[in-house]
Amino acid sequence: MNVVVQNIPRAEASVLAGLAAAGVATVHEAQGRSGLMGPAMRPIQAGTGIAGSAVTISVAPGDNWMLHVAIEQIKPGDVLVVSPTSPCSDGYFGDLLATSAQARGCAGLIINAGVRDVKVLREMGFPVWSTAVHAQGTVKETLGSVNIPIVCAGAAVNAGDVVVADDDGVCVIPVAKAADVLAAAEKRTALEEEKRLKLASGVLGLDLYNMRERLAAKGLKYV
Amino acid sequence: MNVVVQNIPRAEASVLAGLAAAGVATVHEAQGRSGLMGPAMRPIQAGTGIAGSAVTISVAPGDNWMLHVAIEQIKPGDVLVVSPTSPCSDGYFGDLLATSAQARGCAGLIINAGVRDVKVLREMGFPVWSTAVHAQGTVKETLGSVNIPIVCAGAAVNAGDVVVADDDGVCVIPVAKAADVLAAAEKRTALEEEKRLKLASGVLGLDLYNMRERLAAKGLKYV
Amino acid sequence: MNVVVQNIPRAEASVLAGLAAAGVATVHEAQGRSGLMGPAMRPIQAGTGIAGSAVTISVAPGDNWMLHVAIEQIKPGDVLVVSPTSPCSDGYFGDLLATSAQARGCAGLIINAGVRDVKVLREMGFPVWSTAVHAQGTVKETLGSVNIPIVCAGAAVNAGDVVVADDDGVCVIPVAKAADVLAAAEKRTALEEEKRLKLASGVLGLDLYNMRERLAAKGLKYV
Amino acid sequence: MNVVVQNIPRAEASVLAGLAAAGVATVHEAQGRSGLMGPAMRPIQAGTGIAGSAVTISVAPGDNWMLHVAIEQIKPGDVLVVSPTSPCSDGYFGDLLATSAQARGCAGLIINAGVRDVKVLREMGFPVWSTAVHAQGTVKETLGSVNIPIVCAGAAVNAGDVVVADDDGVCVIPVAKAADVLAAAEKRTALEEEKRLKLASGVLGLDLYNMRERLAAKGLKYV
Amino acid sequence: MNVVVQNIPRAEASVLAGLAAAGVATVHEAQGRSGLMGPAMRPIQAGTGIAGSAVTISVAPGDNWMLHVAIEQIKPGDVLVVSPTSPCSDGYFGDLLATSAQARGCAGLIINAGVRDVKVLREMGFPVWSTAVHAQGTVKETLGSVNIPIVCAGAAVNAGDVVVADDDGVCVIPVAKAADVLAAAEKRTALEEEKRLKLASGVLGLDLYNMRERLAAKGLKYV
Amino acid sequence: MNVVVQNIPRAEASVLAGLAAAGVATVHEAQGRSGLMGPAMRPIQAGTGIAGSAVTISVAPGDNWMLHVAIEQIKPGDVLVVSPTSPCSDGYFGDLLATSAQARGCAGLIINAGVRDVKVLREMGFPVWSTAVHAQGTVKETLGSVNIPIVCAGAAVNAGDVVVADDDGVCVIPVAKAADVLAAAEKRTALEEEKRLKLASGVLGLDLYNMRERLAAKGLKYV
Repeated sequence: MNVVVQNIPRAEASVLAGLAAAGVATVHEAQGRSGLMGPAMRPIQAGTGIAGSAVTISVAPGDNWMLHVAIEQIKPGDVLVVSPTSPCSDGYFGDLLATSAQARGCAGLIINAGVRDVKVLREMGFPVWSTAVHAQGTVKETLGSVNIPIVCAGAAVNAGDVVVADDDGVCVIPVAKAADVLAAAEKRTALEEEKRLKLASGVLGLDLYNMRERLAAKGLKYV
Repeated sequence: MNVVVQNIPRAEASVLAGLAAAGVATVHEAQGRSGLMGPAMRPIQAGTGIAGSAVTISVAPGDNWMLHVAIEQIKPGDVLVVSPTSPCSDGYFGDLLATSAQARGCAGLIINAGVRDVKVLREMGFPVWSTAVHAQGTVKETLGSVNIPIVCAGAAVNAGDVVVADDDGVCVIPVAKAADVLAAAEKRTALEEEKRLKLASGVLGLDLYNMRERLAAKGLKYV
Repeated sequence: MNVVVQNIPRAEASVLAGLAAAGVATVHEAQGRSGLMGPAMRPIQAGTGIAGSAVTISVAPGDNWMLHVAIEQIKPGDVLVVSPTSPCSDGYFGDLLATSAQARGCAGLIINAGVRDVKVLREMGFPVWSTAVHAQGTVKETLGSVNIPIVCAGAAVNAGDVVVADDDGVCVIPVAKAADVLAAAEKRTALEEEKRLKLASGVLGLDLYNMRERLAAKGLKYV
Repeated sequence: MNVVVQNIPRAEASVLAGLAAAGVATVHEAQGRSGLMGPAMRPIQAGTGIAGSAVTISVAPGDNWMLHVAIEQIKPGDVLVVSPTSPCSDGYFGDLLATSAQARGCAGLIINAGVRDVKVLREMGFPVWSTAVHAQGTVKETLGSVNIPIVCAGAAVNAGDVVVADDDGVCVIPVAKAADVLAAAEKRTALEEEKRLKLASGVLGLDLYNMRERLAAKGLKYV
Repeated sequence: MNVVVQNIPRAEASVLAGLAAAGVATVHEAQGRSGLMGPAMRPIQAGTGIAGSAVTISVAPGDNWMLHVAIEQIKPGDVLVVSPTSPCSDGYFGDLLATSAQARGCAGLIINAGVRDVKVLREMGFPVWSTAVHAQGTVKETLGSVNIPIVCAGAAVNAGDVVVADDDGVCVIPVAKAADVLAAAEKRTALEEEKRLKLASGVLGLDLYNMRERLAAKGLKYV
Repeated sequence: MNVVVQNIPRAEASVLAGLAAAGVATVHEAQGRSGLMGPAMRPIQAGTGIAGSAVTISVAPGDNWMLHVAIEQIKPGDVLVVSPTSPCSDGYFGDLLATSAQARGCAGLIINAGVRDVKVLREMGFPVWSTAVHAQGTVKETLGSVNIPIVCAGAAVNAGDVVVADDDGVCVIPVAKAADVLAAAEKRTALEEEKRLKLASGVLGLDLYNMRERLAAKGLKYV
């Protein structure tokens, strides 16, 4: 039962831009500490942050056929989110697929497996988060599905969910919650700016957050 | 029995500066190949080397409360050394804690767990060695202790021990031995400079270190 | 039975240069997807690609004695390929060995273990691929062998085999096949350039590779 | 937003019994190769197979408070399925919790973390699949949720989903599909019995499955 | 500076027997959740629990020479606790060393590395906890030390410390605290028996531990 | 270039029986400490030891087609040795393949990947060493090769090489050396019996192997 779902929801561009600006750590907190991919999901570049609607791809281990299928489904700003059905570090994605995805307006790739041609990918400015870098080639023999619910690096992802990715990793937000999470994230960012100024001036977190009494009540002793 | 030990020994600034200049590999050798943290402890930046007195922090998994407590104990040049009581990759430390630590003169962070906001940490020039990068938030519910003996990434660390950290990892030196280790390290560095010149000129290690006879005695055959 | 084999085959310089230019992913494909080291073998630098004849070194865990022996066997352009007889992350190789190897014309190091002094190695422009960075020192007590067949990071390597290494990892090519693999790689590179132009113009891989019919035959449904 | 969902769907006892008898490998195939947890999820006992309705539990790392909450929600035959919000190997579950769960008719535990008191758990005949065995204690400070959708060892699990577990691992089946998957599994088991007899008599899979022609067409050469 | 410390403290036999009976999970709790080795330390047998005084051994990677030295230091009931100075999975210990250790009255082995001859070790009834099983042989070239402080699988161990080991792992208790920890463990065990009876009768932990009010105060909702 | 090599060398039955009796640890030593697979290769059963001629199989990740091809090449006593071309934990082999292999006289399976139906495999008495247990199914789409040189769990294996496997792991012996290795193994076993008697009587290894003088010369101090 392998399918390509062609119509998926997408968050508004302004919401995506706001979430990218807020960054993964803030968005993860603003959402109540859910939706985070595991720490093995790492960027191949430094200093880049994105947010986009997920085109999800379920693939067989060592088989990248469905990536070609998925690229047709990309709308500008979308992010490819790929997960094999069993653990795999093969290089599913390289410079040709990146060229094709970029031509469709793809904002980046999140893959619970390997990528290759990473030097060229960095030069192209095509952002990637992956769990491996490996030149190992893949075949085109077994069907998978596009835009079905998947699990990627420990996070559940539905087609159209917002994925936010930066140097801290990747966080997934259900599209229906994206605007609310953005609002909460922006509030959090504003509050953090205030705190930052106080902390930078030498005020201690112990005082800023009124922790001393509760620490003492729990039994902390200074010796 | 959770405590904050407020008075800890500290090495002299000149000793710390010397050890930082010598670097981890040399210091580790100078100390008789002890005190090294495991290879999973990696820097989030490249090209930075530090040495400082350890403010040790024992924390519960997923709980960063004691970092706020520890920051009050920092004296300029100190290094925070954090280890959870069981394996954990959560992001205990981000830009706000770094701002607060930096305001107190903290020289850097060594953590047997994760950090987040790494882009900002790099921009702030706050050096970090960690075993993970993960946006996962932590709670403030369970006490730990500050400045008690801990084990961090396989190395025993006492409060006030010197920690030396650079691109090669992290090495721990008991404060009472720090001056002797520095002397041994400087001697080693001087000797290495001599060797480097000879090796660069094409002299072989086989000859420089007189290895040929011992190799033959052990039975090595050239065919 | 520890030996140093002194005469090994070597590929021609022009073939090596061609393979380095083609890169690991292309060479691996051109060779029929064989010879690739595992994804734990990573560069300590970014953006560097090399190809050279392998001087193979089998070492005991935690013992780098044979690296000194091997350096005498280097001819300009050779690559040291080191594997311990059991899993080990110790720092076998640092700036002094690199100085000595560089003085002999060594093109780089591939090691299924750790290296140290990585900041200096990067500054020297001495390229390294390793499975760990660790300052841990090694001893010089147990013999190994030089230029015997070894297994390194999952790949079999014979003395004189061509090793190609870049940001994607490391691939091994038997010296007898090197010219043929280069020819196949260059053909592949030329073809990829054509494809790249088409994909960049917006042509889909689905159409470029005529995949639609076969996907439908396998049962893929669009919904 | 921490909740306990009190009404969940459950598969019929006869369906559960059939799925337990079919076993994980067969059920996974019958469901189209989906729903399998990763290979790090291992039984602490050998030779035991179960199937039950999932009471799902999302917990904080190092905090087992919600297991007490979840036990009240157990109906006879249910299976506890626990996943922390970040990677954790602590011992969330031991003999007291097992005694309590067993008293409520709980059929077993699946946990993407550690357990302890494993000798007693084995003696009690309380079946467990976990990703670690570790005595490390947990706290009771942070809320989680019961019977919400979770991801456990790479598989998405909804409350009431059927979990089948045996020596091969753990597979998850949506409750709505459970009867169909059982029918497909039983058909598959019957077919396998036929095949087993033929294979045991010496008939080759090459002939039984008519593979020779397709292998030749793909280019396989006998030399 | 390699030494063999010949006089070490030892806990009384009755204390050791009591701690072995209490088991690792209880002892770990009774000691305030400290001293536990990591979850990679696993028994090679099932159902065996021991407690003994630690003869500590610091070894080079791949070198088991110091085990021969340490065996002379064993007094009946002692446990060998071995840790290499860098990560290693070699088989340091097999049936001959076990025969020798057993002849001296050794109660078992805890090793942060590999062992071999495990079938014979099991038949001999010589209990072992290790982080690997590997036939890989070791050399006898490099000195280490006996009865110095070591770190083993993440826990600090001093010579003479009590090590308690069973199916749940290994816990370390400073000899000076052993009697107090035993008293606390026995109290805990008695309390657990009461709780067990209540839980077995169907009383919920929610009620037994009065959790409902605190859960509600924290905001848990039943839906 | 996928091939099935039909004629392979095989060691004599008496040599195989002798090597199985000697066991992995002894054979590995007798061969000069080479040919050992890594510690991730573990038996699914306890107490079983085998030796046989290797039928080698190179497979694509997640594709077990070539196992059917290989079974036709089995002669009684042969051992299947399987390695995917990239890291994979899928369950390539289950009870039907075991039935077929057993019908051909196959002595066991060594696989650098996963197996499934392990309860039945144990009941059938079909011995298996693998790097994973996972129910994940595989496809039959991509050719591999049979009886070509492969690398399996870090060891190079040629078709017809002797593989010896027991609770300690797996060791590979070139067929041309098998008789010599057996002779060396038997000599070693005899010597070990003498040593065992002396050690069991309380003689120390320090004295049996005359280590005291060399230890003192290296600088070991008793304090």
